[in-house]
Amino acid sequence: MVVVMKSKANDEAIEKVVSRIEGLGLKVQVTKGEHQTILGLIGDTKSVDESMIYDEDNVEKILKIQEPYKLANRDFHPEDTLIEIKGHTIGGGNLTVMAGPCSIESEEQIIEVAKRVKEAGANVLRGGAFKPRTSPYSFQGLGLDGLKMMKKASEVTGLPIVTEVMSTEDVEIVEEYADILQIGARNMSNFSLLKKVGRSNKPVLLKRGMSATVQELLMSAEYIMSEGNKNVILCERGIRTFETYTRNTLDLSVVTAIKELSHLPIIIDPSHATGKWKMVEPMSKASVAVGADGLMIEVHNDPQNALCDGPQSLKPEKFDSLMKNITKLHKAM
Amino acid sequence: MVVVMKSKANDEAIEKVVSRIEGLGLKVQVTKGEHQTILGLIGDTKSVDESMIYDEDNVEKILKIQEPYKLANRDFHPEDTLIEIKGHTIGGGNLTVMAGPCSIESEEQIIEVAKRVKEAGANVLRGGAFKPRTSPYSFQGLGLDGLKMMKKASEVTGLPIVTEVMSTEDVEIVEEYADILQIGARNMSNFSLLKKVGRSNKPVLLKRGMSATVQELLMSAEYIMSEGNKNVILCERGIRTFETYTRNTLDLSVVTAIKELSHLPIIIDPSHATGKWKMVEPMSKASVAVGADGLMIEVHNDPQNALCDGPQSLKPEKFDSLMKNITKLHKAM
Amino acid sequence: MVVVMKSKANDEAIEKVVSRIEGLGLKVQVTKGEHQTILGLIGDTKSVDESMIYDEDNVEKILKIQEPYKLANRDFHPEDTLIEIKGHTIGGGNLTVMAGPCSIESEEQIIEVAKRVKEAGANVLRGGAFKPRTSPYSFQGLGLDGLKMMKKASEVTGLPIVTEVMSTEDVEIVEEYADILQIGARNMSNFSLLKKVGRSNKPVLLKRGMSATVQELLMSAEYIMSEGNKNVILCERGIRTFETYTRNTLDLSVVTAIKELSHLPIIIDPSHATGKWKMVEPMSKASVAVGADGLMIEVHNDPQNALCDGPQSLKPEKFDSLMKNITKLHKAM
Amino acid sequence: MVVVMKSKANDEAIEKVVSRIEGLGLKVQVTKGEHQTILGLIGDTKSVDESMIYDEDNVEKILKIQEPYKLANRDFHPEDTLIEIKGHTIGGGNLTVMAGPCSIESEEQIIEVAKRVKEAGANVLRGGAFKPRTSPYSFQGLGLDGLKMMKKASEVTGLPIVTEVMSTEDVEIVEEYADILQIGARNMSNFSLLKKVGRSNKPVLLKRGMSATVQELLMSAEYIMSEGNKNVILCERGIRTFETYTRNTLDLSVVTAIKELSHLPIIIDPSHATGKWKMVEPMSKASVAVGADGLMIEVHNDPQNALCDGPQSLKPEKFDSLMKNITKLHKAM
Repeated sequence: MVVVMKSKANDEAIEKVVSRIEGLGLKVQVTKGEHQTILGLIGDTKSVDESMIYDEDNVEKILKIQEPYKLANRDFHPEDTLIEIKGHTIGGGNLTVMAGPCSIESEEQIIEVAKRVKEAGANVLRGGAFKPRTSPYSFQGLGLDGLKMMKKASEVTGLPIVTEVMSTEDVEIVEEYADILQIGARNMSNFSLLKKVGRSNKPVLLKRGMSATVQELLMSAEYIMSEGNKNVILCERGIRTFETYTRNTLDLSVVTAIKELSHLPIIIDPSHATGKWKMVEPMSKASVAVGADGLMIEVHNDPQNALCDGPQSLKPEKFDSLMKNITKLHKAM
Repeated sequence: MVVVMKSKANDEAIEKVVSRIEGLGLKVQVTKGEHQTILGLIGDTKSVDESMIYDEDNVEKILKIQEPYKLANRDFHPEDTLIEIKGHTIGGGNLTVMAGPCSIESEEQIIEVAKRVKEAGANVLRGGAFKPRTSPYSFQGLGLDGLKMMKKASEVTGLPIVTEVMSTEDVEIVEEYADILQIGARNMSNFSLLKKVGRSNKPVLLKRGMSATVQELLMSAEYIMSEGNKNVILCERGIRTFETYTRNTLDLSVVTAIKELSHLPIIIDPSHATGKWKMVEPMSKASVAVGADGLMIEVHNDPQNALCDGPQSLKPEKFDSLMKNITKLHKAM
Repeated sequence: MVVVMKSKANDEAIEKVVSRIEGLGLKVQVTKGEHQTILGLIGDTKSVDESMIYDEDNVEKILKIQEPYKLANRDFHPEDTLIEIKGHTIGGGNLTVMAGPCSIESEEQIIEVAKRVKEAGANVLRGGAFKPRTSPYSFQGLGLDGLKMMKKASEVTGLPIVTEVMSTEDVEIVEEYADILQIGARNMSNFSLLKKVGRSNKPVLLKRGMSATVQELLMSAEYIMSEGNKNVILCERGIRTFETYTRNTLDLSVVTAIKELSHLPIIIDPSHATGKWKMVEPMSKASVAVGADGLMIEVHNDPQNALCDGPQSLKPEKFDSLMKNITKLHKAM
Repeated sequence: MVVVMKSKANDEAIEKVVSRIEGLGLKVQVTKGEHQTILGLIGDTKSVDESMIYDEDNVEKILKIQEPYKLANRDFHPEDTLIEIKGHTIGGGNLTVMAGPCSIESEEQIIEVAKRVKEAGANVLRGGAFKPRTSPYSFQGLGLDGLKMMKKASEVTGLPIVTEVMSTEDVEIVEEYADILQIGARNMSNFSLLKKVGRSNKPVLLKRGMSATVQELLMSAEYIMSEGNKNVILCERGIRTFETYTRNTLDLSVVTAIKELSHLPIIIDPSHATGKWKMVEPMSKASVAVGADGLMIEVHNDPQNALCDGPQSLKPEKFDSLMKNITKLHKAM
């Protein structure tokens, strides 16, 4: 951190600010210039809040230099994090594809889709049992029944399961059935939930909030990791912008940013990002080309009758073709 | 809802879509034009999801006409909702001021601030016991101890209490101490939490999410109301935009929008919206002028040593002056 | 400016960066810390581009402290700028109301509206002759004919005229008829046009671009002022956000920001900001309450038949009532 | 267009709206439902403004169905537009790479860079002579001298030239030297300039505005095309969002959108989109994978001493490697 004092701040005022900073256990280097004095803070400023240094009358600006996350920071953990799920490794150059329906609707449906995506080469089965819906009148998911159906589909195909957990109260039950706990975009800053899954021994898939910065995404990962769970998979699913043609705006540069700033794997969800099935394959190719560690794709055996997100779901035959094309592309890279 | 068929959709295709809509319990009026056929849906489309009508090959567009919320909708409830808290009425032309520190830091602090804001004319004491912080390393609030301190401040001053609840697991304990349950911006779409406070008999202050539309805010209110709790107070606290000069961008037109669309009271939080104490008074005046039902303002006896949000907190003497000015303005309106 | 060197930057690297900065005519104060070296730049860094200091291998961050505008900066010009137009002063506590139709449609129309808004108390007549329309197929304005009609309305009523100039080629002709040259939001960063009106002796009304920051708005003012024209009136007309309920999101905190950063007057256009006539009066009141120097309001004698922006135009009788209310409010403040 | 009447609108009111629409040369199909009447407009509604139909008391909503652009619309021009520049074809499956420095700084510099990018496989030389800079105190480009230097570099290498034109007054002079006229993001809605280049016989590279929707981008193309110039190349260069880690947010889904909606070629500028040279190659790969028709990349022989945009410029050797990788990828697709 660098603290820029106002030009009118006198020695006494400077001394006061310096003392407060030293009181936080940090060292200060003072540079007096012709116009203003600059204080350089030395030490771990990770837990220093601007409020603690704030001085209306004498401080002009407080500039952060150090990144506020540590466990998620590549500087302190240069090696890529690899996450093992039932023999499959996420990260480390592998391309992990998580596929399945938006909602689990019946045992037949989830087993059929699971078989189809497994056959096409997917590595993880996705599906929603607890569904975060904008309207209280929309289908809210099958809950525990859905988890049981998904488990059956997992047993039939051998695919591990990723599914969303929406509430601290549901963590135990979801943990029992799922191989990866998904935190949805709307809950990225639900810190109580992040702490709870941080105490789980199951890996967590953390989706970026609709208007979360890259730094905030990593701070949410830090919440999970600071409770002990180091197995966090990040997921970009589109951010909210002024553009309405697509459901959200997929920010692929986040992959490059994350690879620079963090050691955690990052996957892309082109289905939610675009809201249009026709865009899923091209954006999947772009995701692979930019270096994402994987994809999360909605596949439904009968999109026209899906209980949610039909317009962005791929039919199994389209998914087959997508898998062929991205596998080829991933090898070519 | 209006469904616009593609120009190439033939009679059979149209019939198929019509049947699906009728299967949802709705009537359909079909208009065949020279170029395309338009279907008008008649009946309650509140719980109709676009996915249910979606037909890749034959449907061009699905246009919503009816608002998707009902309990929060002024059309079905033309009278303003009034909320009574310990003899004070929120809504109905009153100006309700909720004031207090960002965090409860000690019994002395909260009692001192409570006395000062009470004296200045505030109607409700605000203060955080459970704090949603971006960093896991920042001060997380005093929790239950904070609630107890706040209760004491309430007893001393007679001011009712509003404080944030961050987790379904904490609802009971916060309910025990607070007069109004606050849902923070980050939890506006934490639907599990919304349902839980929807079963409380305490009024709920629902803050607009950082990138939530007016409609989404009302849908979150609908979640609470659909569980039985009709006492919802909406709160605008700034939205996230590209502008970085202020912490957020305060969207005051939302007051006019809410007054048109809903019967629920709406208050403004200029402290979080701007992040700068100097802007709090001018934006408070603007809020009163535009017709807001109240304000939520951060006041701290010693902002320079506040554990959070010092730069946006008013000193008690500044708050005195603000109260005088807005009271005068409110009377003049 | 403060340059933070990378921790690995050695003395030679630091010396190289220092020399480059000194080569730009600035002094440098070097602070060597345990971890990194910080360079403080002393002197006028207004024309220093980050690119000039950029050093991939050795520079970690370049932090700006000084604001990049000078002529528009209150620090160098503490007194409010007052602008005289035909005996009326803009700024200095006055409330200036500019009113009139979106487009000039006929001599009768503009004269009728001019009479009505004059009577209601408006100070300036607004009206579009050259119209920036999203579609090339929409009505593009009456051009020179429109200017002539507006001139007649000005002669009849004595109201000075503000009208938009869209192209460098039209500056001379618009200057001949208008009292204030308006630069529209879409042209806020049309630097050729800014320079051209900067050489005019007519005041300029500069609208904030749809996604321009406060700093960028002031930099555009600086473009005009640096060519010699010091009479710039800023105008907030709503920014583009994710919210679609209103046409744009009116950012009223910009008034407080501008009053702090600059000496230039700032007015608000609630008509374009909201796109809904019902919101014009409440947002006008809020603008007055927050301390804006004036308003720009669309008034049309027959909104239902207006060639553009009917839904956001006030009828003359609504404008009468608005003027009464805001005048009362302005006096009360 | 579909007009939804308010439920209270009586026959007379409906008749009035119908007459107004028929007065615009359109046919109307009226559907009276139990609750509300819906009017379907038949005919070319491209030049119909909502204002013309607007009726405060009786119209509830006006819904657009037809896209407002015609010449740029794939529906009316199913074949891809191919643009020939000195023997090179833009569009039709080719990958066109435009490369060169942000600013032309000297004859030596531009010739050296031109040789290097030509050798690496670039098809067009880019370089700025007239520079749109946020600050009036920043380097504004060499103007005509820059154009002459660029021309020489073109003669030496055989590469065609693309360069920005910022003002209607400069169109003739830029046309004389350039092979492609570039309209910058800040001028995307400078309609006077669009019309002027629409009368040129040189192809136009139209950059998407910082907060322009896909539809607005196509409407700006329509402005150019409606004046006669059909050779428009679209360019995505990042949009403005809340994210500050990158300079802008590159919206790659726009490629898929444009390919669906329009027949015009679209290229990507990853340099301006990200602002960081390290991101240029990964985002270039993603652009090729998603199906873009080309790339526009900043290359500088000495980025550390570049007069602008050094941090986002590639050194020639990095550009060599990028060209090899994307060429391989383009073939593999």
